[in-house]
Amino acid sequence: MKTLIKNSHVLTMDAKRTEYPDGYVIIEDTRILEIGPYDQLLQSESSFDEVIDAHQTIAIPGMVNTHTHIGMIPFRSLGDDYPDRLRRFLFPLETACMTKELAYYSGKYAIAEMQLAGITTFADMYYFEDALAQATDEMKSRAILGETIVDFPSCDASTAHGGIEYAEKFIPKWLDHELITPAVAPHAPNTNDPEALKAAAALAEKYGVPMTMHVAEMDYEMKHFKELHNATPIEFLQSIGVLSPRFIAAHCIHLSAQDLQILKQEGVGVAHCIGANTKSAKGVARVKDMQEMSIPVGLGTDGPSSGNTLDLFTQMKLVANFHKTTLQDRTAFPASDIVAMATIEGAKVLNMSHEIGSLEIGKKADIVLVETKSVNMFPIFDPYAALVYAANASNVQDVFISGAAVIRDKELVHHDLTVLRSNLSSEMIPFSKKARELA
Amino acid sequence: MKTLIKNSHVLTMDAKRTEYPDGYVIIEDTRILEIGPYDQLLQSESSFDEVIDAHQTIAIPGMVNTHTHIGMIPFRSLGDDYPDRLRRFLFPLETACMTKELAYYSGKYAIAEMQLAGITTFADMYYFEDALAQATDEMKSRAILGETIVDFPSCDASTAHGGIEYAEKFIPKWLDHELITPAVAPHAPNTNDPEALKAAAALAEKYGVPMTMHVAEMDYEMKHFKELHNATPIEFLQSIGVLSPRFIAAHCIHLSAQDLQILKQEGVGVAHCIGANTKSAKGVARVKDMQEMSIPVGLGTDGPSSGNTLDLFTQMKLVANFHKTTLQDRTAFPASDIVAMATIEGAKVLNMSHEIGSLEIGKKADIVLVETKSVNMFPIFDPYAALVYAANASNVQDVFISGAAVIRDKELVHHDLTVLRSNLSSEMIPFSKKARELA
Repeated sequence: MKTLIKNSHVLTMDAKRTEYPDGYVIIEDTRILEIGPYDQLLQSESSFDEVIDAHQTIAIPGMVNTHTHIGMIPFRSLGDDYPDRLRRFLFPLETACMTKELAYYSGKYAIAEMQLAGITTFADMYYFEDALAQATDEMKSRAILGETIVDFPSCDASTAHGGIEYAEKFIPKWLDHELITPAVAPHAPNTNDPEALKAAAALAEKYGVPMTMHVAEMDYEMKHFKELHNATPIEFLQSIGVLSPRFIAAHCIHLSAQDLQILKQEGVGVAHCIGANTKSAKGVARVKDMQEMSIPVGLGTDGPSSGNTLDLFTQMKLVANFHKTTLQDRTAFPASDIVAMATIEGAKVLNMSHEIGSLEIGKKADIVLVETKSVNMFPIFDPYAALVYAANASNVQDVFISGAAVIRDKELVHHDLTVLRSNLSSEMIPFSKKARELA
Repeated sequence: MKTLIKNSHVLTMDAKRTEYPDGYVIIEDTRILEIGPYDQLLQSESSFDEVIDAHQTIAIPGMVNTHTHIGMIPFRSLGDDYPDRLRRFLFPLETACMTKELAYYSGKYAIAEMQLAGITTFADMYYFEDALAQATDEMKSRAILGETIVDFPSCDASTAHGGIEYAEKFIPKWLDHELITPAVAPHAPNTNDPEALKAAAALAEKYGVPMTMHVAEMDYEMKHFKELHNATPIEFLQSIGVLSPRFIAAHCIHLSAQDLQILKQEGVGVAHCIGANTKSAKGVARVKDMQEMSIPVGLGTDGPSSGNTLDLFTQMKLVANFHKTTLQDRTAFPASDIVAMATIEGAKVLNMSHEIGSLEIGKKADIVLVETKSVNMFPIFDPYAALVYAANASNVQDVFISGAAVIRDKELVHHDLTVLRSNLSSEMIPFSKKARELA
């Protein structure tokens, strides 16, 4: 199968940030065969199985969401402005109402939302990851799926740290999947004892899979480690030997100079969730410092109850405005660097940049066409600025994952959104009833 | 003409924040005749000229954009991340390339963008306001249009402060228009001498029209007044007697405790442009302090080169995240208060709250239906949260201004966006050429 995409303004996001204002991309099966300026296309158009005229679009690599919770669509718009949403809504509802079926339907819906927004790869952390792997497989997205490990019984484990046992079965089952990478996901440094964290790391090591965790996100987490160990969470994690290049640290809002050194030294990548972090008034992570030390930083939507939408356009705008303001420098975080964070830098965080994150010959054909016909996308003197400052998820027109179209003309190719929503809605009935009682 | 809108989740934004989860609104000619829960509708549906089934929508008052520059669409995505964009791009391009025709076509396009985003009323400050009034009239939007006055020759005035003479003709010409309120708009306290400011205020007083100005926006503006008058810009404006309830102050980023007292005492309303202010790293205005003193604060997109999109959904999200983070309080600025800022509070800033800003019997029928079919709008436990944290401009489905539909099913009713864009694009040719030379 050979497809030609032509007449797009191609932003490759390669190391040189090569652009082809009138560019073409050839997809052969799952990979990019050729890319360049259209006037250098040698092959005849009749030699392709499909020719896509991508006039009035910007082509970018599939976006990479480095941290989310796809099982949590049911929580969206519930208790956003409450002081202790976690204990008032999230924990009780997860205990009482989260099931394998609900996670599965939520997962499918969440993946649809991400595909419609141009996200082709995501890193998830939730419960029932086997059901979420099933959902991911059916939706044909690329993902790292991390089973949660936490020191209390959870909706998918009857004992504390039951996620370890779950992951022992879950990981080998999905290890050879083309698009899915199973993983372990201890919830946070302060919600697991050191033995559980070490067991999780050993599991990741045994199977050669990622380990992802919320780190340095909460005030009380910082206080806990200060009081108990006179250390930061990052220092503590290093001291017990669980950090490594396969570690994906979400949030990292509160970092000391020493923490930055440790992240660098251990090769840890960071999932920066600016929307969730600032909506919950937790603060702004030191991203510029990390970037200056070449610590990979990607973007994360966080879950739909924290970040509300599973799109990186919202995150890109927030990254620009928050970091410029925090640094008091309007030239900081230029648009092209932010598009890089949403693509190639995210791929680096997930250790996938050899396969995805940029449009280059030989890489997987994860490609997004963003249309510029809509009212917000004119004029375009700088396509990066248009993507960061003006575009929203609704401008995403076509999405390819490993060469296969999952979105065409703003619609799911293989699924019907109405059906996905209706299935989720039916499955949500007990959840919604309980949610309204708690509100 | 009598229209029934039924089956919408109606957020009236009245003083009690009355909601009708299954509500109806009756429009008679230009005004709201009835509003309430659908099960209390007494009139037969056959008695209406049109019945709109607004199933899966949230109905809100038309949104109010308290500060923008509709002539500036040509500048979008140009030099966003440059240190001195104003002097490098804006001033040279305005001098060399801004014409009456370009302003007019930009204005029509900008108004289309606002209508598509649910903005029914805006306050503008630019040059060639007569052409912009023509554009506004043709687009059927409600607007305050302020002719710029500045202490150097400008694209529409060959002498310094030529805007005063321009406004002398412009204001009486449009004074009796149903939807348009002409106004004076001195550029800023530091770009006009006191005599010009007084003349502008006298003109506003003479015709009973608004006066709008950028105030306390720039670091160098603060420094200028400190050095020259040992005063803040607001103290200075009060001292020369130009503040009054007809004064609309844009930005007000840098306010002292005394400034807040002055704004309160003089009855000044504030246009808060969080997106433009934070993208340019200027800072976050003290909105909570203003609100606690009952100083009206509305939202502004600022111009398309500063805020990039002319929609208030982007601004609402930024207001939430920036103010929660600045105050270190996730419960601050709850979603319903932010929707109020985008509607009724904005109307108060413009002194129009007797006519618009809420859905109440007798008010002008400026109504927006936001669809909840799209992937980002499910589930909805709290419609205000859905509007602030999840919605974007593309969710706006239908828009009525003074009872007349300007948007139906996400399309302009009376205009063709492709034509508006093509006209603007043609008119932009010399501008674009020069812009690329400067970049």
